Amino acid sequence: MSGASEMKVLALSGGVGGAKLCLGLMDVLPPGALGVLVNTADDFEHLGLHISPDLDTLLYTLSGRSHPTQGWGLEGESWHTMEALEAIGGATWFRLGDKDIATHLLRTGQLRAGASLSAVTAGLADTHQLHTQLWPMSDDPVATVVHSEAGDLSFQDYFVGRQCEPRVTGFSFSGSDVARPHPPAIAALQDPSLQAVVICPSNPFVSIDPILSIAAYREALVQCAAPVIAVSPIVAGQAIKGPTAKMMRELQMPVTALEVARHYGNLLDMFILDDSDAELAPQIREATGVEVGVTNTVMKDRESKQCLAQFVLDQVGRVSCE
Amino acid sequence: MSGASEMKVLALSGGVGGAKLCLGLMDVLPPGALGVLVNTADDFEHLGLHISPDLDTLLYTLSGRSHPTQGWGLEGESWHTMEALEAIGGATWFRLGDKDIATHLLRTGQLRAGASLSAVTAGLADTHQLHTQLWPMSDDPVATVVHSEAGDLSFQDYFVGRQCEPRVTGFSFSGSDVARPHPPAIAALQDPSLQAVVICPSNPFVSIDPILSIAAYREALVQCAAPVIAVSPIVAGQAIKGPTAKMMRELQMPVTALEVARHYGNLLDMFILDDSDAELAPQIREATGVEVGVTNTVMKDRESKQCLAQFVLDQVGRVSCE
Repeated sequence: MSGASEMKVLALSGGVGGAKLCLGLMDVLPPGALGVLVNTADDFEHLGLHISPDLDTLLYTLSGRSHPTQGWGLEGESWHTMEALEAIGGATWFRLGDKDIATHLLRTGQLRAGASLSAVTAGLADTHQLHTQLWPMSDDPVATVVHSEAGDLSFQDYFVGRQCEPRVTGFSFSGSDVARPHPPAIAALQDPSLQAVVICPSNPFVSIDPILSIAAYREALVQCAAPVIAVSPIVAGQAIKGPTAKMMRELQMPVTALEVARHYGNLLDMFILDDSDAELAPQIREATGVEVGVTNTVMKDRESKQCLAQFVLDQVGRVSCE
Repeated sequence: MSGASEMKVLALSGGVGGAKLCLGLMDVLPPGALGVLVNTADDFEHLGLHISPDLDTLLYTLSGRSHPTQGWGLEGESWHTMEALEAIGGATWFRLGDKDIATHLLRTGQLRAGASLSAVTAGLADTHQLHTQLWPMSDDPVATVVHSEAGDLSFQDYFVGRQCEPRVTGFSFSGSDVARPHPPAIAALQDPSLQAVVICPSNPFVSIDPILSIAAYREALVQCAAPVIAVSPIVAGQAIKGPTAKMMRELQMPVTALEVARHYGNLLDMFILDDSDAELAPQIREATGVEVGVTNTVMKDRESKQCLAQFVLDQVGRVSCE
């Protein structure tokens, strides 16, 4: 594991979409130069297991173990535990593969023995020989609450259990008022050698906002000497994956990259748009005052992930923070 | 599930040896007539899971799912989670099969949601369509501590982790002074319609004594109107399976059925010996004052389990309690 002092780029990420860009960043940066601050407000206890979906997606993606198309879980997974659980009437709505369960058992056992989530995660990253810092946003519990026309729902109930079907009216992050930020992440944001902060094209409402709901991060981002660069999760009025566009519609927001840029507001120094949205660039500059970069943001394969990552890093010289 | 009122026979059992006789009893008794009071002092938390080895052995054996020769676990088990756990550096000394893990997940999830161990166990018995009451000895935690020349060891550390290698000097049962007995088990022991209590040929020190360490059980057994009949776990100076004989040697006890009968002392109304130990019968009668029955106690197959069970039940008329 590399120390934080070698870190040059800090990415803020949720699950799948964010992990893709992180993989690209990991590929194009030297070992140890990338840190990822990961949403943990989707974490939940299920069947006694502490499950950290976004941390695991990062862990599996960056270590090359993730399922190539499914968007979650491991490649070559088997399902014997789930089948047996179904046979004895257990809850199977959240699919846990046999190999994936090993991660949850290791984590849960260590947490119950008193380890912090960040220590457990560092151990897992080490075991997977990641040369990237993987940081949970907090060792304290924060839980996304989805306010919806079906009432207040826990995130996994909404996201997996109900397949994002209920219309959302807003979100809150239970525990974020008292959750402590991860100290090395704050230190990295304050470190003058940090070169860039990248807000990955994750869901702004339920992947990035939970991180920003811890006030110390928002403050550190505003004061950060390195440019903060967000990549739009909305491309041509649609989300590549997941419910971002659906949520925007339900929240009565135009489903455009402009609205995402507005959403992040004064945190940003630069916003990166997909080629297909190039015509929005002047509007975004005018509305938000941030620099805009335009490139292909659709990451279909490893090469396109690397290209986008390189493009993001190439913008650093174009923007200044003050 | 049958109610306790139909129950005619209550068996006290640990794991494998006890489960064999319970299977025989289940086969020869009408549905609902058998209840099994099970040792839970081997229970432990491992990788965040609440594991109840003896309850599971009973559950799997009575439902026909147990591994036919291994002595623990399920038939047709797979090991994908263990392999993945090993690959990420997790603890694999306690082998958890993929199907078996489903039981632990179901139990752990329900316990963490506030259910009692007895309620979880009743649910599992129901799901497995058992017409036998399966009762944990207590819903409160009791833990066998193995005093040994290697120090005080938790049971699973001694039994699985160290393969019973350290010489034992004694045992204690942490929590048994405050653990509450399972109320239906006490009610069954006080019920005048109960016909027999069977102490299975389980390890006296670490399977039966933990149950007896809850004072209310010992008292209820002494006062029970039905005869208390124990089957010797020692046959011709050896234990069929497990460390009973080794423990007796280390505790400086002669490794004989007589010593087991003495160990249970005034709790017993009858003691059942293997044919190969027939010559001990007069000594046992003289030393303990209990009736002795002699039969084949080695349960090699389903039929021999049923024969032993029937023999035990046939003795009921031979003994009176007062």
